[in-house]
Amino acid sequence: MIDKGRVTVPTDVDVIDATIDIINRWKADAIRDCDGTDMPDELRNMDIKQYATYYTTRKDNKWAKANPDEIQQMYLMSDFTTAKSSELKICIMKHFYTDQLKPNTIDDIHRWWEVIDRTTDTVIKDWDYDEETREVTIHNAIPYHAYTVSFLAFVIWDPVHMYNSLTNEWEGEEHQMTYDVRQPKTQKYVLDKFRRFCEERTDVNVVRFTTFFHQFTLQFDEKAREKYVDWFGYSASVSPYILKQFEEEVGYPFRPEYIINKGFNNSTFCVPTKEYMDFMDFQQREVCKLAKKFVDICHEYGKEAMMFLGDHWIGTEPYGKYFSSIGLDAVVGSVGSGTTLRLISDIQGVKYTEGRFLPYFFPDTFYEGGDPLQEAKINWVTARRAILRSPVDRIGYGGYLKLALKFPEFIDYIEKVCDEFRELYSHINQQEPYTHMTVGVLNSWGELRRWGTHLVHHAIWYKQIYSYTGVMEALSGFPFHVRFISFDDIRKDPDTLNDVDVLINVGSAYTSFSGGEEFDETIVSTLRRYVDQGGGFIGVGEPTACAKNGKFFTLYDVLGVDEELGFTLHTDKYNWETHDHFIVEQLEHEDWGECINNVYALPETTVIRDKDLHVNLACNEYGKGRSVYINGLPFSFENTRLLYRAIYYAAHKEADMKKWYSENYNLDVNVYPSTHSFCVVNNTYEPQQSTIYKGDGTSIDVNVPACGIQWFDMD
Amino acid sequence: MIDKGRVTVPTDVDVIDATIDIINRWKADAIRDCDGTDMPDELRNMDIKQYATYYTTRKDNKWAKANPDEIQQMYLMSDFTTAKSSELKICIMKHFYTDQLKPNTIDDIHRWWEVIDRTTDTVIKDWDYDEETREVTIHNAIPYHAYTVSFLAFVIWDPVHMYNSLTNEWEGEEHQMTYDVRQPKTQKYVLDKFRRFCEERTDVNVVRFTTFFHQFTLQFDEKAREKYVDWFGYSASVSPYILKQFEEEVGYPFRPEYIINKGFNNSTFCVPTKEYMDFMDFQQREVCKLAKKFVDICHEYGKEAMMFLGDHWIGTEPYGKYFSSIGLDAVVGSVGSGTTLRLISDIQGVKYTEGRFLPYFFPDTFYEGGDPLQEAKINWVTARRAILRSPVDRIGYGGYLKLALKFPEFIDYIEKVCDEFRELYSHINQQEPYTHMTVGVLNSWGELRRWGTHLVHHAIWYKQIYSYTGVMEALSGFPFHVRFISFDDIRKDPDTLNDVDVLINVGSAYTSFSGGEEFDETIVSTLRRYVDQGGGFIGVGEPTACAKNGKFFTLYDVLGVDEELGFTLHTDKYNWETHDHFIVEQLEHEDWGECINNVYALPETTVIRDKDLHVNLACNEYGKGRSVYINGLPFSFENTRLLYRAIYYAAHKEADMKKWYSENYNLDVNVYPSTHSFCVVNNTYEPQQSTIYKGDGTSIDVNVPACGIQWFDMD
Repeated sequence: MIDKGRVTVPTDVDVIDATIDIINRWKADAIRDCDGTDMPDELRNMDIKQYATYYTTRKDNKWAKANPDEIQQMYLMSDFTTAKSSELKICIMKHFYTDQLKPNTIDDIHRWWEVIDRTTDTVIKDWDYDEETREVTIHNAIPYHAYTVSFLAFVIWDPVHMYNSLTNEWEGEEHQMTYDVRQPKTQKYVLDKFRRFCEERTDVNVVRFTTFFHQFTLQFDEKAREKYVDWFGYSASVSPYILKQFEEEVGYPFRPEYIINKGFNNSTFCVPTKEYMDFMDFQQREVCKLAKKFVDICHEYGKEAMMFLGDHWIGTEPYGKYFSSIGLDAVVGSVGSGTTLRLISDIQGVKYTEGRFLPYFFPDTFYEGGDPLQEAKINWVTARRAILRSPVDRIGYGGYLKLALKFPEFIDYIEKVCDEFRELYSHINQQEPYTHMTVGVLNSWGELRRWGTHLVHHAIWYKQIYSYTGVMEALSGFPFHVRFISFDDIRKDPDTLNDVDVLINVGSAYTSFSGGEEFDETIVSTLRRYVDQGGGFIGVGEPTACAKNGKFFTLYDVLGVDEELGFTLHTDKYNWETHDHFIVEQLEHEDWGECINNVYALPETTVIRDKDLHVNLACNEYGKGRSVYINGLPFSFENTRLLYRAIYYAAHKEADMKKWYSENYNLDVNVYPSTHSFCVVNNTYEPQQSTIYKGDGTSIDVNVPACGIQWFDMD
Repeated sequence: MIDKGRVTVPTDVDVIDATIDIINRWKADAIRDCDGTDMPDELRNMDIKQYATYYTTRKDNKWAKANPDEIQQMYLMSDFTTAKSSELKICIMKHFYTDQLKPNTIDDIHRWWEVIDRTTDTVIKDWDYDEETREVTIHNAIPYHAYTVSFLAFVIWDPVHMYNSLTNEWEGEEHQMTYDVRQPKTQKYVLDKFRRFCEERTDVNVVRFTTFFHQFTLQFDEKAREKYVDWFGYSASVSPYILKQFEEEVGYPFRPEYIINKGFNNSTFCVPTKEYMDFMDFQQREVCKLAKKFVDICHEYGKEAMMFLGDHWIGTEPYGKYFSSIGLDAVVGSVGSGTTLRLISDIQGVKYTEGRFLPYFFPDTFYEGGDPLQEAKINWVTARRAILRSPVDRIGYGGYLKLALKFPEFIDYIEKVCDEFRELYSHINQQEPYTHMTVGVLNSWGELRRWGTHLVHHAIWYKQIYSYTGVMEALSGFPFHVRFISFDDIRKDPDTLNDVDVLINVGSAYTSFSGGEEFDETIVSTLRRYVDQGGGFIGVGEPTACAKNGKFFTLYDVLGVDEELGFTLHTDKYNWETHDHFIVEQLEHEDWGECINNVYALPETTVIRDKDLHVNLACNEYGKGRSVYINGLPFSFENTRLLYRAIYYAAHKEADMKKWYSENYNLDVNVYPSTHSFCVVNNTYEPQQSTIYKGDGTSIDVNVPACGIQWFDMD
């Protein structure tokens, strides 16, 4: 039983005594500074681990200004602009925030910019740029064609500094510019400076890199509002210096379109192009190589190196093949849900992981009349489902401690959370919990984006994804191995599915998560074989969809459903009778999320739920295997149970379901053979009671208080 | 004022006196027989026009059996069947009704059938067919690929005879086979027989062809249920004899796939392929040429030739370029709505048109406890909106008069309908009513399928079309010229849009009605120019949609909206504030139909209605022109008014709207300058009152009884 530690507390110069009090109450073993706070000298000599936030790319405007050619850059695309005569002027910075971004005219714009006729998808050469007006003029434009300009811009205000500055209303704060550590002058400068930092700051035990070199794509509009955000985006990891290296590496000429990709900026929802995959691979290798230099310096000075999984994390890709070569000691990341918890906790190749829980101690939550306690409860209870399956090794908080101190109930609650965390961590004992089976998630990204599916801006809700993220959130706490499998994994080795009990494909048509054009002959045949020979398959939304050869769902035969696009409207559909089914035995409050409105069942399919002539839930026998189709699955504990049952059904394991199982779906059961213990956790804010089945089929009855967790011996 | 005539009554041998009574009450001037009824000898000499239903293709099983090679044929496709080993057997008639259809093995199956690997879209040659088991065996199949067999089948039971027979439970009735009048032996036989008929039946004044040679596509399944129905389908107009001629004509080899088209059977929702267009053109020319022979014989014997627009109408295409060459005197068709009324009444090149109103006197409506009166009211009031704009010249009924006689209120009501029809017909005076402007409907079919857009099975409701058919139904009664314009019309002559005040594009993505791949460079540029220079554009559903070059709606800039497919989810969308607007001044009960769920507005667009983060109604200024986006428009009088206002808005003619205009949208105003009259018609089943604006802006107040129509002098 661990009775202290594993907790990190933020501090600042104005809360020295309070920090010590909190350290004692939360039994913390580490303190940290944050963006906008400083570590007080008085605490630097305390016998407690000291984290120092370190920014490799900013907080040195002097350097930035002296080296304008090595300011970080981002590829931007102008608005689509329709020509109405043979000359077209495009104001390239329209709808961008000029305090954040500034067109790069230092490098040859005719080499690094690209003007495209988007009506014909043709590159245009006959244009020039007026630096004064920031207008590109296209000569000999074709009237009523639409054109765009892809261009490089310097990131003259670091977007995270900007966000923090605006959120906290920092006044008179100089805009921090962001320089490119990949470029030679800056690299040398920053490495030297970092070495000096390590030398000087003997008090620092852990360097918390926030982060390395490239910010995820984050653009602001002319009103300083967020314009574009992609937590996985590589758009801001470019410069002619880097791109020339890339060209040499891959042996083909670079095009801005490889980054711009029709203005989608290679959103994670796009099936990745070969060139983007090449670029990501190149960046990962180079970023990891350079990150290692920083980590090596830390180690030289006896410090640990911790990476914040966010902000400038691009290229590190913790699930990529180069990550472990960095030699990091730890990763810390923000926890917004069970899914994002596992985005951190599943990382291999580091000694430990840390979750930075919400709310962040910022004035947008900690204001008079705000309810940070409720936010903390939801955050903890939601993440705990996933922690019990795959724990982070530490928890912590960030922001201004001063703000949190004004909410004593919040401070009390976190004290309990810290105790609870240490207790469960002891039980889990750094061993894998008991696992019932293996579930695969099939998409274009595979393990590279483990737990990153359908993630736009970390755990934020979007209308177009919430019907799918419920699947991920459910999986994050299930007692299953979860593998993320890419289409390429299958192409390279069809046997990769051999250990998968149930394969899940979830998403909207043509996205990287559903797969679209990925469903080629090989994939379709391999998946049919997999199910025919006994595999389970679950499709959610528009699984396997790609309109070709007469069908929309390419695995229509496996799924037993297809979507009516209009072309088969003339074909009568008679299969609308619904059937009782194992999967829905506990379903009362149906919620299929955003409706995929035109799904119909093939004649032999078992329809379980339909409404207004579309199928919400169906299953199908296919050879020795089974499939389940689900229209959508927003997160709720009822839907989580629905998926659980669907997985057992698809795997032909219904008879085994009631082992380490709670009849009440608001409770989860997790089993830890290495400590011979199991727990029953209440994921809701009300007390719950239930019958709990143990592994041998015997049962106990439990009453678990709101948000509670109860521990039992396995016997 | 016409006080009698223009009405056709069905009769039969068992209702002679009653027929005379009905003729007198309805002031009818024509009687007819039907499928399953006979004209009584006693009535044959009456001084009243006599229609005789004539079937060129059936009711002669003796001939059919003696000439099995000239039985009509249909291209069928087997089920998609997935191979699980290297040999695959496909039972080609599985899910077809073997009493209706029989595989043609008389002609070389290896020439006229086609086996396709639908996973790779490859034609397979290594297969054979077992006539006994009706199985195609594919050798060297690729496991887990899906295969289909396209094959010719004889239509051994005419589908309409089958439908009538099953609906009326005709027992012991021999199944009527259907022979191919296009083939030489049958053609000679049928023409000779028809000549004898004309010679013998001197009592017949009008030969009512039901119809000519080729049935629209209608397939039944193994349970004798409708399996596939396409009122526009050409699948049953094929035979090796015809296809060889087609090959010679077009100069390229025929493939079954030209008819099968992935199993879509060239549904009207498919953007037509070049080969299908070629085939339709060839068929039209040949069908019209042969139909003319029959019509010429009619005329030789002093009879009129009337074509029923249905059943075997395929290839006649009343809006096609060969139709008028047939020389028909009349067309009669079934009226299911305002749209289908105009499908008949707008036909040119005949002396008159006749609407066959519903309900048909069949036992499915005229049973004890049935309510044929209500059905008749709805049918008449619905169609009347369109009649007042473009009248048929006659009305009539069909089926068993005996059944209708049991419903005296029905008989009374039809008497009133006949009087009302004659009165309005007098007012309209065979001149075009007053027209406020010209509206174009843009789709792949143009005038060829005038009023046939989104029509699956005549006026039948489908979940996937009702949100669009409301547009057609509204237009069918508007005081506008309505032109149907194809993409090819625009490609051939961009000036074709010059007289169009407002162009409408309505439908689901990629269908022939929305247009899909039709939105090429030329179309996109031409339409942008059209709107920029002052044209109006209205998009409903997924207008102009075709995912390419970074956008989904290819006219995103004109419409000011696009649909989020996921690839731009990372782009913030801020334009959700709704605005009061001229278009919605009278809108209370919003009904946008089946939701297109992910439409968002571009930053400059005026959003008028949105819900749950999708736009239902928006408008946009584009140069001198305007556009309106509507999510969907199910038919209702409120939505009809919404569209009316949207058209006036898009045309920049809001100030002119209140001319010949009813404030109450349940009333329509139609104006007939040639008789100096106008009418106010109540389209509802309750009394309505309203202020009516005349052409000079002065107004009158009216009270119109339920379903009523009131006539006024224009002054």
